[in-house]
Amino acid sequence: MADIESALREIARGAEEIIPLDELKKKLESGRQLTIKLGMDPTAPDIHLGHTVILNKLRTFQKLGHKIVLIIGDFTASIGDPSGKNATRPELPREKIEENAKTYKEQVFKILDPELTEIRYNSEWSEKLGAAGSIRLASKLTVARMLERDDFSKRFASRQPIAIHEFLYPLFQGYDSVAIKADVELGGTDQKFNLLMGRELQKDAGMEPQCVLMMPLLVGLDGVVKMSKSKGNYIGVTEAPKEMFGKIMSISDELMWNYYTLLSEKSSDEIEALKKSCEDGSMNPRDAKIELGREIVARFHSAQEADAAVEGFKSQFQKGALPEDIPEFTIETKAIPNLLKDAGLVSTTSDGIRMIKQHAVKCDGKVIENPKAEACSGIWQVGKRRFAKIILK
Amino acid sequence: MADIESALREIARGAEEIIPLDELKKKLESGRQLTIKLGMDPTAPDIHLGHTVILNKLRTFQKLGHKIVLIIGDFTASIGDPSGKNATRPELPREKIEENAKTYKEQVFKILDPELTEIRYNSEWSEKLGAAGSIRLASKLTVARMLERDDFSKRFASRQPIAIHEFLYPLFQGYDSVAIKADVELGGTDQKFNLLMGRELQKDAGMEPQCVLMMPLLVGLDGVVKMSKSKGNYIGVTEAPKEMFGKIMSISDELMWNYYTLLSEKSSDEIEALKKSCEDGSMNPRDAKIELGREIVARFHSAQEADAAVEGFKSQFQKGALPEDIPEFTIETKAIPNLLKDAGLVSTTSDGIRMIKQHAVKCDGKVIENPKAEACSGIWQVGKRRFAKIILK
Repeated sequence: MADIESALREIARGAEEIIPLDELKKKLESGRQLTIKLGMDPTAPDIHLGHTVILNKLRTFQKLGHKIVLIIGDFTASIGDPSGKNATRPELPREKIEENAKTYKEQVFKILDPELTEIRYNSEWSEKLGAAGSIRLASKLTVARMLERDDFSKRFASRQPIAIHEFLYPLFQGYDSVAIKADVELGGTDQKFNLLMGRELQKDAGMEPQCVLMMPLLVGLDGVVKMSKSKGNYIGVTEAPKEMFGKIMSISDELMWNYYTLLSEKSSDEIEALKKSCEDGSMNPRDAKIELGREIVARFHSAQEADAAVEGFKSQFQKGALPEDIPEFTIETKAIPNLLKDAGLVSTTSDGIRMIKQHAVKCDGKVIENPKAEACSGIWQVGKRRFAKIILK
Repeated sequence: MADIESALREIARGAEEIIPLDELKKKLESGRQLTIKLGMDPTAPDIHLGHTVILNKLRTFQKLGHKIVLIIGDFTASIGDPSGKNATRPELPREKIEENAKTYKEQVFKILDPELTEIRYNSEWSEKLGAAGSIRLASKLTVARMLERDDFSKRFASRQPIAIHEFLYPLFQGYDSVAIKADVELGGTDQKFNLLMGRELQKDAGMEPQCVLMMPLLVGLDGVVKMSKSKGNYIGVTEAPKEMFGKIMSISDELMWNYYTLLSEKSSDEIEALKKSCEDGSMNPRDAKIELGREIVARFHSAQEADAAVEGFKSQFQKGALPEDIPEFTIETKAIPNLLKDAGLVSTTSDGIRMIKQHAVKCDGKVIENPKAEACSGIWQVGKRRFAKIILK
């Protein structure tokens, strides 16, 4: 029973909500291998650290011996948004879906154990429903209930059109849970309605209903808004080791503990111990951050590359006495002299060009030789004393 | 052009609404054979005169050389109401659908020319849509627009549940028009939303959209509410010639003209002439009613049987000087003595039994011998002077 308690503790770590917790406990106590579902939209295969929060949680289940089923939503993707109103949901040709799925797999297997992972395409069972089965599926929910979904209720209230097929997507997605007999489904908090739909449809089909585990959205490097490509506050899982490590080192101490909870493979006890050491002064928070950066780089690259990134960072910054408080700027990508001016490191762009020519400008410790070189995110230094952390949008 | 005008006049006769009239005119002017659609629910194959209003209109189109396509809605009938909330829409087994369709065909071919009639089952094209096609179909309309449909808006406003699949049925029905490339669809005024759906879906499919012709609901024998089995104010198309004829003779003069418009094969000019004769006194309205009764009995039985019914009626009533104003009663079926009492023909039931034993009670001119005989609708007479028109519920 102690094992179940500690398993449940790791599963619940960082989770926003588990519905219902007692059923999840019972499933864990049953001793059987559980089927953990994650749905995946094959339109956007490139993932960043924010997407890996849920993958890490899946990994936790795998460590406990459970089976992960990743469902590639090729069925709905192949239809796209037939009303043509949603430009972000184009009809995806089969080859593109396959290609995206391949990219996605390469990325997720940096975290997940392929031995305990099954990849399924939902067209397998969705198409089989046919027209009659689709109607039967649509009978499972009322219009009023569907309109309770947050985005629908807002659009309905503000008289924005909702096409009827949009009501079908959550049902088809919920049907995936019936098809694979999911025990637990993971998703973001914004997916609550859809996740619970699977639970309802399973009950309706006379099955033991799945539990639902919702993870929060990861906050971006800026510590303010959720990590997203469009905000420029992200770390892509395919970014180079040095970039990835540098970005981790750029986050605040507070955010670091959040990242530990959501991204680290360390146990809750280990994290607690680290935190305590930082609080009682026996450890420098920067060293805890280095450990986090090392773990993440190692995951997406290798232990050697992680160590190299740490060493590079140490030799360039720690030894060079980097000041404690470096001002931070999120800036649109632009020419380096302009970047320097915007970050207040130089007073004019010509001043910036002059400093570069004097070899007085560095990015992450590396001297910038050419004023026309491509700009990058990192810690910029002009002369001996002027520093700025610049994040490119 | 004069031909088109008179064709349009016969088509428009009695119609409640034609949408849009100018497009219908253009279709008629094109000279090509038009496809006229009528959808039919295979759950209730027994038809009464009320149902034939639309069949008569189809006959008008046939006389102009156009093709009728009767669509048997076996696809949706085979699904039934999967939410189980609507007991009137059970899932119909295939054999029952076939059997109902057979009964229906026998009945409609009393009016329609089989040479110009095609019978199709909508499962033929609906199932082919598959799950993906069903979603695409559902994308063609918004939730808000669907909720404008009268019954949906009422149910939504009063918080009665509407299952999502109920939104799909009108779309599938509209898709029938796309599948058969309908030029005109006929229906009752209560079907307006669904009829226009076919028009919208055809436009969306890049087709010339169908016109919609709506017929009013036939008023029942009582002249008050629409003809329906449950109200007992109907004439079934399989009723015996004498019953059928007698019921037509029981309607008011005003209702007779309405029936002429909606049920007779006579041209509008012929009907106008008849009406004028009755108005100027050169014809007894009763004779016009006899002609209507003869036409209708001939249609569902034969000319000989119609003539026999007329003769029987004449010998029993006209020669027997039936009073002009006979009081009318709609009464629950019960024993004859009670019936007589309820209609005020006798003062007590024992009085009724006594009169029957004295051979003083007649129904439609026929002497009732047995007080325990089965009651029937008709004109009842007790003694020489007491008359009542009794319609059994």
